Amino acid sequence: MNKPTTQDAFDTPKVTTGPLPGSRRVYTAPAAAPDLKVPHREIDLHPTANEKPLRVYDCSGPYSDPAANIDVEHGLARTRTDWVLERGGVEAYEGREPSPLDNGGATGKYLAREFPVRHKPLKATGTGPVTQYQFAKAGIITKEMIYAAERENLGRAAAMAGAAERRAEGEDFGAEIPEFVTPEFVRDEIARGRAILPANINHGELEPMVIGRNFLVKINANIGNSAVASSVEEEVEKMVWAIRWGGDTVMDLSTGKNIHNTREWILRNSPVPIGTVPIYQALEKVNGIAEDLTWEVFRDTLIEQAEQGVDYFTIHAGVRLAYVPLTAGRLTGIVSRGGSIMAKWCLAHHKESFLYTHFEDICDIMAAYDVSFSLGDGLRPGSIADANDAAQFAELETLGELTKIAWDKGCQVMIEGPGHVPMHKIKANMDKQLAVCGEAPFYTLGPLTTDIAPGYDHITSAIGAAMIGWFGTAMLCYVTPKEHLGLPDRDDVKVGVVTYKIAAHAADLAKGHPAAKLRDDAMSRARFEFRWADQFNIGLDPETAKDFHDQTLPKEAHKLAHFCSMCGPKFCSMKISQDVRDFAAGKPGATSEEAKKGMEEKAREFREKGGEVYLETPE
Amino acid sequence: MNKPTTQDAFDTPKVTTGPLPGSRRVYTAPAAAPDLKVPHREIDLHPTANEKPLRVYDCSGPYSDPAANIDVEHGLARTRTDWVLERGGVEAYEGREPSPLDNGGATGKYLAREFPVRHKPLKATGTGPVTQYQFAKAGIITKEMIYAAERENLGRAAAMAGAAERRAEGEDFGAEIPEFVTPEFVRDEIARGRAILPANINHGELEPMVIGRNFLVKINANIGNSAVASSVEEEVEKMVWAIRWGGDTVMDLSTGKNIHNTREWILRNSPVPIGTVPIYQALEKVNGIAEDLTWEVFRDTLIEQAEQGVDYFTIHAGVRLAYVPLTAGRLTGIVSRGGSIMAKWCLAHHKESFLYTHFEDICDIMAAYDVSFSLGDGLRPGSIADANDAAQFAELETLGELTKIAWDKGCQVMIEGPGHVPMHKIKANMDKQLAVCGEAPFYTLGPLTTDIAPGYDHITSAIGAAMIGWFGTAMLCYVTPKEHLGLPDRDDVKVGVVTYKIAAHAADLAKGHPAAKLRDDAMSRARFEFRWADQFNIGLDPETAKDFHDQTLPKEAHKLAHFCSMCGPKFCSMKISQDVRDFAAGKPGATSEEAKKGMEEKAREFREKGGEVYLETPE
Repeated sequence: MNKPTTQDAFDTPKVTTGPLPGSRRVYTAPAAAPDLKVPHREIDLHPTANEKPLRVYDCSGPYSDPAANIDVEHGLARTRTDWVLERGGVEAYEGREPSPLDNGGATGKYLAREFPVRHKPLKATGTGPVTQYQFAKAGIITKEMIYAAERENLGRAAAMAGAAERRAEGEDFGAEIPEFVTPEFVRDEIARGRAILPANINHGELEPMVIGRNFLVKINANIGNSAVASSVEEEVEKMVWAIRWGGDTVMDLSTGKNIHNTREWILRNSPVPIGTVPIYQALEKVNGIAEDLTWEVFRDTLIEQAEQGVDYFTIHAGVRLAYVPLTAGRLTGIVSRGGSIMAKWCLAHHKESFLYTHFEDICDIMAAYDVSFSLGDGLRPGSIADANDAAQFAELETLGELTKIAWDKGCQVMIEGPGHVPMHKIKANMDKQLAVCGEAPFYTLGPLTTDIAPGYDHITSAIGAAMIGWFGTAMLCYVTPKEHLGLPDRDDVKVGVVTYKIAAHAADLAKGHPAAKLRDDAMSRARFEFRWADQFNIGLDPETAKDFHDQTLPKEAHKLAHFCSMCGPKFCSMKISQDVRDFAAGKPGATSEEAKKGMEEKAREFREKGGEVYLETPE
Repeated sequence: MNKPTTQDAFDTPKVTTGPLPGSRRVYTAPAAAPDLKVPHREIDLHPTANEKPLRVYDCSGPYSDPAANIDVEHGLARTRTDWVLERGGVEAYEGREPSPLDNGGATGKYLAREFPVRHKPLKATGTGPVTQYQFAKAGIITKEMIYAAERENLGRAAAMAGAAERRAEGEDFGAEIPEFVTPEFVRDEIARGRAILPANINHGELEPMVIGRNFLVKINANIGNSAVASSVEEEVEKMVWAIRWGGDTVMDLSTGKNIHNTREWILRNSPVPIGTVPIYQALEKVNGIAEDLTWEVFRDTLIEQAEQGVDYFTIHAGVRLAYVPLTAGRLTGIVSRGGSIMAKWCLAHHKESFLYTHFEDICDIMAAYDVSFSLGDGLRPGSIADANDAAQFAELETLGELTKIAWDKGCQVMIEGPGHVPMHKIKANMDKQLAVCGEAPFYTLGPLTTDIAPGYDHITSAIGAAMIGWFGTAMLCYVTPKEHLGLPDRDDVKVGVVTYKIAAHAADLAKGHPAAKLRDDAMSRARFEFRWADQFNIGLDPETAKDFHDQTLPKEAHKLAHFCSMCGPKFCSMKISQDVRDFAAGKPGATSEEAKKGMEEKAREFREKGGEVYLETPE
């Protein structure tokens, strides 16, 4: 959906490891499956806080765990493969023989190195459920579901105090966010089609997670391969970097040469679901000529990627021949790359799209490996002018029809959404998607709320992303500051991810997610008590926060100073607020609780005297 | 409201002059007052666009006009003083004698240089209307109103084609945005109290503008003086820099020494309204000890600043003694600096705030110079936890009462708003403000929609700002990336301003503002036609956009290349979209219009054949 990354920016020789400042990766064992080690991140707070470490969701993988042995040449542990095998219904087989075309015909020094280990692929035997959807429908709770449930709760029973009030306080637009996420709830949501758990049976390295509007809002980051495959570690680093800052899934949008080998390195080292747009690689196999695409080339590409372990495929099967002319009067035509490819194919052959006519065949392949659908919005608007037009909504309706077919075939499905949409047209997108796609998770790019700020489209889109996330979108595809201009570098990826974590979290808060506010409150307490290091570490980007602070007040001693550079040492809102508490409680050194009591007393007094007691005080 | 800027960042010796890339400052003469020269910015487009230059709102002042003679030592031309004098009702007088205390007792090399020219202040004689509100109520259209109306329309009659449909398409939540802004409409909005035109009669350098929810959403940028007054030009440059990128007004939040002299330099060189928080300077006059503040010191400060020409004052008169205990149970207490000062004063004396008890006296002073009220929200929430609480809303109700008093006294009034507010609680703020403050313009800081992203609070707050702007807020106070961490530097100011221009414009679009979409559409056409230089120049920050683009495709030739770095030369959505047009029209080289016709024909055909014509096509 978005743009791949540049090579230049990723010139680190190794992948980034180690925890974020002041925090540790910890693991909990779910009651339902004590053999699982479910990761979280714990942020240590200053002793004066007198608070337990703050636990937050962690998608950074073993890379942030100093105890983990990271060896990119070997890949992550394939723990999940055992879960898949013990359930049965799958068999290992020889698999498709990679061809030079899979890497765009690259040879010699231009060919990216093969991943050193070759795993035999698994596929369904047809003797029992294999996809998470099939298990869910059969009433079976998988280890993946238990794992995902445990993550969603952040392992905190403590979070539950007052959760009901917080939820009631939010506005969830009809979502059904539970007080506590149980494995059974995850199963039920998947069975209803309201959530997906993208987990290809060949992605044994995966740390399972769930996407749906009754769970935490997730974000996706895009990466892409390099023009010159100088180092495979650099390719892995792009993924590691994106998940370090909070990418819940990563899409590999590679084009050109070495797509196959690069993807293998990424998958074998990725703890998060990996998504792709298979038509990109298929197009490379026919030398970039859209009209030369065939079902056979596409089918072969699906199998190639499914065997490798890709967790979800963007499939633009909603770009039907009949809809293509609907874009003729648009200001910016078709801007989705996949959409354009299919539109061109349809026009050139004057035939219905092979993705549409072969949709059931595609389902059969994806079900056999549990690759989830991300039904692509090939006709999404590329400008404010084209938002919510006939082409866009015609396609969305078709995606709704296809969703039901995919479910019937046992597949998991999410739906991609726009694009460029002004604020007042955003909710209509969500409402229509919910209505026509049977509540399948929505996965949107932004949307960008204005076209006039190239260089700042992470911001134009974060506005739309936060809103549509609040309205019910389950996953937000990030946009970097380089959108519309060029390929994002390392810093752009980080800014894009952090910006989208903001949008996702703002949405969680507004939906009344039971535990979302805990992190905000921890930050606010740290602010109020001038615990500077805690403020940095609780934040989404501790490094930038510390750097910004130190530009004005660099000294270490200032990290616990009871003032900041804005008001200076003479003036302190914390001091005044303590004065207020003392006043309310009628004694010095009052606690917040004592102040509250005193305040209630004063308020009663105030009301009894006719509500004007203070006004009467002569100046 | 926000934080002042650091000195270090503004080390340029001179103020920034010259136009933004590819654009020119132009002037139009309104029919109602042909002697006025109302500024706009025109962006030139590439000849292949075959479009007239794009006209956009311009608040950069003469600094962007190469024909203007900029001399900071002399100040801008005091054109507006003639308008004030010709209306009568004012008299020049000797004015208050500046005291050393006005500059915090700074002497010798620590004292900022005095502005070389001393203008005698004007004040009302009481013989006729003086404030814009008084003129408006009297049915008199001032030159300021004519000027502001002309700017709002961007001088474009062309924009009117389809304006009604665009407006109807937006959702304006009860605003009454006109098709065309006439001077009479400006007058009427001011008379109803729904808009203000901040214009101190002593600010002769002003280019008048209007703030109200039926006009374009405006933004404010904050600046502050330096610890060491090494160069007065540096102080002026902060203001010039902020308005260059789009600051509609500037608040001078200086503290410490040299407040008086610095402000004089800023005012004499400022084409935009300048706002201040007089209590900051008053506090300096009593050595920073809040309880030592008196009505007399405050009154003297108001007159001092009014004589200089400050256009609006933040007055925290809603922080009543009775409300202070309501903050005792808060997570982050009182975070407004002005609010804390007044809370401390009230507690120390156990008396009602002198701002409240002397409110009518304050009105009399402000009416005599036409200083607009910005009624401060001293009890705004400083965290998600404290949003929309009793203290905040109690104060807002008092601000509503004070608004009516100020109107009765002939003053212009706007109301300040929060703060930290999660998305689902934003609309309640706007609705309550409209209800209790008689539709007086709302002026909000953000609001920040989450607390967890220090270093990115321009983004956490842009989300809230865009939404509340859509709901009806008239002016948005910017937040920079340094919020909560330190003092913004030059880059932070620019990022803050551009981010808030995005929020304001997204709001204008969503409200259905008749002409807002023109700029988005011009950008989208430039995108579709690969006019790269036009894309940069139409954007809010041409320099950053060009820089980002050139990091991937630096060559000059690429500026007109019919491809971008994302898809490369082989693949081009424009080419495909032309194919689509040709297909729809049934002939090569079809225009968008021909394609539209062809499309309609095809759609009819499609319907007649039962809507399944293409599905039947065998693969």
